[in-house]
Amino acid sequence: MPSEAALKWLESNKQASVDRLVGWLKIPSVSTDPAYRDQCRAAATWAAQRLTEAGLAAELVPTGTKEKPGHPIVLATTPTVHDPNAKGPHVLFYGHYDVQPADPLNLWESPPFEPVIKPAKGAVGEHIVARGAVDDKGQVASFLEALLAWKHSGGPIAGGLKITVMLEGEEESGSVNLERFVTDHRSRLESCDVCVISDTGMYDRQTPAITYGVRGLAYTEITLHAANRDLHSGQWGGRCPNPISELTKVLAGLWDKDYRVTIPGFYDSVRDLQPSERAAWKALGFDQVKALADIGMPPEADVGEKGYTALEREWARPTAEINGIWGGYTGAGAKTVIPAHASAKVSFRLVADQDPEKIRDAFFTWCKARTPAGCRWELTDHHGGWPVTVPTKSPMLDACLRALKAASGRDAALIKTGGSIPVGGLLKSALGIDTIFMGFGLDDDRVHSPNEKFELACFRLGCRTHVLAMEELGRG
Amino acid sequence: MPSEAALKWLESNKQASVDRLVGWLKIPSVSTDPAYRDQCRAAATWAAQRLTEAGLAAELVPTGTKEKPGHPIVLATTPTVHDPNAKGPHVLFYGHYDVQPADPLNLWESPPFEPVIKPAKGAVGEHIVARGAVDDKGQVASFLEALLAWKHSGGPIAGGLKITVMLEGEEESGSVNLERFVTDHRSRLESCDVCVISDTGMYDRQTPAITYGVRGLAYTEITLHAANRDLHSGQWGGRCPNPISELTKVLAGLWDKDYRVTIPGFYDSVRDLQPSERAAWKALGFDQVKALADIGMPPEADVGEKGYTALEREWARPTAEINGIWGGYTGAGAKTVIPAHASAKVSFRLVADQDPEKIRDAFFTWCKARTPAGCRWELTDHHGGWPVTVPTKSPMLDACLRALKAASGRDAALIKTGGSIPVGGLLKSALGIDTIFMGFGLDDDRVHSPNEKFELACFRLGCRTHVLAMEELGRG
Repeated sequence: MPSEAALKWLESNKQASVDRLVGWLKIPSVSTDPAYRDQCRAAATWAAQRLTEAGLAAELVPTGTKEKPGHPIVLATTPTVHDPNAKGPHVLFYGHYDVQPADPLNLWESPPFEPVIKPAKGAVGEHIVARGAVDDKGQVASFLEALLAWKHSGGPIAGGLKITVMLEGEEESGSVNLERFVTDHRSRLESCDVCVISDTGMYDRQTPAITYGVRGLAYTEITLHAANRDLHSGQWGGRCPNPISELTKVLAGLWDKDYRVTIPGFYDSVRDLQPSERAAWKALGFDQVKALADIGMPPEADVGEKGYTALEREWARPTAEINGIWGGYTGAGAKTVIPAHASAKVSFRLVADQDPEKIRDAFFTWCKARTPAGCRWELTDHHGGWPVTVPTKSPMLDACLRALKAASGRDAALIKTGGSIPVGGLLKSALGIDTIFMGFGLDDDRVHSPNEKFELACFRLGCRTHVLAMEELGRG
Repeated sequence: MPSEAALKWLESNKQASVDRLVGWLKIPSVSTDPAYRDQCRAAATWAAQRLTEAGLAAELVPTGTKEKPGHPIVLATTPTVHDPNAKGPHVLFYGHYDVQPADPLNLWESPPFEPVIKPAKGAVGEHIVARGAVDDKGQVASFLEALLAWKHSGGPIAGGLKITVMLEGEEESGSVNLERFVTDHRSRLESCDVCVISDTGMYDRQTPAITYGVRGLAYTEITLHAANRDLHSGQWGGRCPNPISELTKVLAGLWDKDYRVTIPGFYDSVRDLQPSERAAWKALGFDQVKALADIGMPPEADVGEKGYTALEREWARPTAEINGIWGGYTGAGAKTVIPAHASAKVSFRLVADQDPEKIRDAFFTWCKARTPAGCRWELTDHHGGWPVTVPTKSPMLDACLRALKAASGRDAALIKTGGSIPVGGLLKSALGIDTIFMGFGLDDDRVHSPNEKFELACFRLGCRTHVLAMEELGRG
């Protein structure tokens, strides 16, 4: 079968594939920090060059406005997309070339943007350590390598499959320009039958997986303003509001003793877990105690919403988290100050069918109802995305399951993830297409943390799977 | 009377006095930050030079240990201290040459260590803007100018009064080496009859004051540790403790709805307010609504312990304050992280007769009793000081009241302050001497805040008062 040559090419070009990924990871494409604007564009250009090399027509499409420019989106298509005689489905492949900020830098064992290959701890083979190694450059690279394999092994472009590629540069900063982009380029996207995204994980090292549900996100920043200047706590302590103290009192009320979010209506649109789902997940035998041990925590750290297992809480229950907090004096030693204001970054992980904007509004309303006497709020929306749950039975999904089995020799598990991939919900609402999340990360990849890594075994499984998936999906 | 010449000299050297103060304020003697070690020493040397110029024997005495060196203490004496025939009391003058950190720098209208003279807003005359302008360099300078006035006007050194001067360099960082210093130099201090400190304020622009009570302080830093690395809130949100969320829940419990501190035993040693005291303070007619308006806050911001007026809460009631808090992502935009730890600086203003060490221990015990599941505390003591309340009837205090009246033409008020001057409690316990707090600051001097200032009228009143006090105290 034609994929054999492509698979051989991958095998004999193993090192070159890793070298290419290293080159991409060296570009610090941190989208949330304006200081990295040029590096984001450089990372997009790099991807467009690989796509062109694989025979696709690729371009960088600008986003945002003149006043508030966004990071470009890499848009590419196989020639077959424009060939009226080409058979088979039209598949949209989405990924993102931007990465999370690398801080805290002091906790990295090697510089975040100087990738190193290390022996994989407690596993066979090696892994590559760098910011973006698995989220998402490494996974997108496994798709790009599959395209290069088809091309350089003399096969049809993308194995003959009709593919449109859309690589975003703002996934880690709220995808603020993606919805507008999808609307503006509807004509190039609406003929797609399904979307495939590699930005999730395997169930474990041995078990590949298709993720049929992701959580949504609503991300906010709140600042509580009190006096118009910093005050001396001797003169003013006990005489006026301390914005840090008042902010902690408000935020502490976000959860009840059972870790349920107290915002009115928060759970209204949450789909209940089905007994069949709970049974299927229980059968996976997830070991929360071991997972906690891996992050240095004892079994009693298994805290969360009462009445649900750890896996159920991550995959099927919404949460409220404080991702950052700051105010007053944070330097060395002591300063007896009552600051003028205090801030926090508060986000909510959502599940189908919660609406991110409704949750954000409910939170802001909840804050205002608790405004400390004499203080005022500054409430900012850093955006988020819709939760998604897709059907577990479809020809396309079956094609991906066949590819995973052929590439790994194992049956893939059907799982969910607690992470958010907003584009899934957007593509469903804007274009009516479902998304198949076929990822190759592992739970211990330290996503968003110092020393993020990607197992080379997973990277190579991703390359092989994408080669085979292009073939299987082409069968329609 | 001999003081006349000294007062004349002050009048004709007004500008030179201000210029000298400007020179001292230019030295950034921030004691809490090790980066300013040399500048602290330079500020101490500057003071020793003025004392020598005034005819005193001055030296810089090192503090701390070889491993953990402290900032030097300026120790100086008039020749009369060692003259067995010299009559009259022996007065200890204490002040501090170190200053608070200047941050947040962006809120200063002029650089904190480049003093500028400006027209005094809403008041006659001018004021000097700089970190340390009033706390405490400007006030110590008013004492130094009085010494220079006696010397250069041809009068006896310090008006003939037996004076020992002790200028500390760690008042803003917990006076960690002062107790040891006082013990080690007991032989040079124990013959003192009383201590005079200029580090407090007048009641208002028109009314000079003697402060007979200051609050104590216990200053701590607490860090809550959770996982051994930063985590992705998608993967872990709802599955393990978030140290920021858990820290806010613990800290929010520090107060009840009446703003009373909930730590068991916190109020046990607090002296009740006497009806006579409450009546005397009421008679001062303090306007809290105006004070709030001055810091940009509405009347409803008058919050604090239930059952007490604003003045009573500041002068006679203890508080718990969060002076700083930090954890997770605090940069621009969004980062969906659950951090490994979160921290806060928590301090307590104390009143007679609360013990700072007992309060610190009670708080740490309270924290441990609330350790979130699976987490651990790192608890640090940044030290503090004892509260002080001194007798309002004594010959020495009467002498100072006479000096204030002669210098200002007004009767001085007997007040308290919410600030802390730990040395008062230390001198009482170590040497058995009382302290007279005779200060010249104003409530709106922005102590510990950006744009700290000192009214030149107050500075000059301080100079005149110290000239006269040396004379009055000398009468014994």
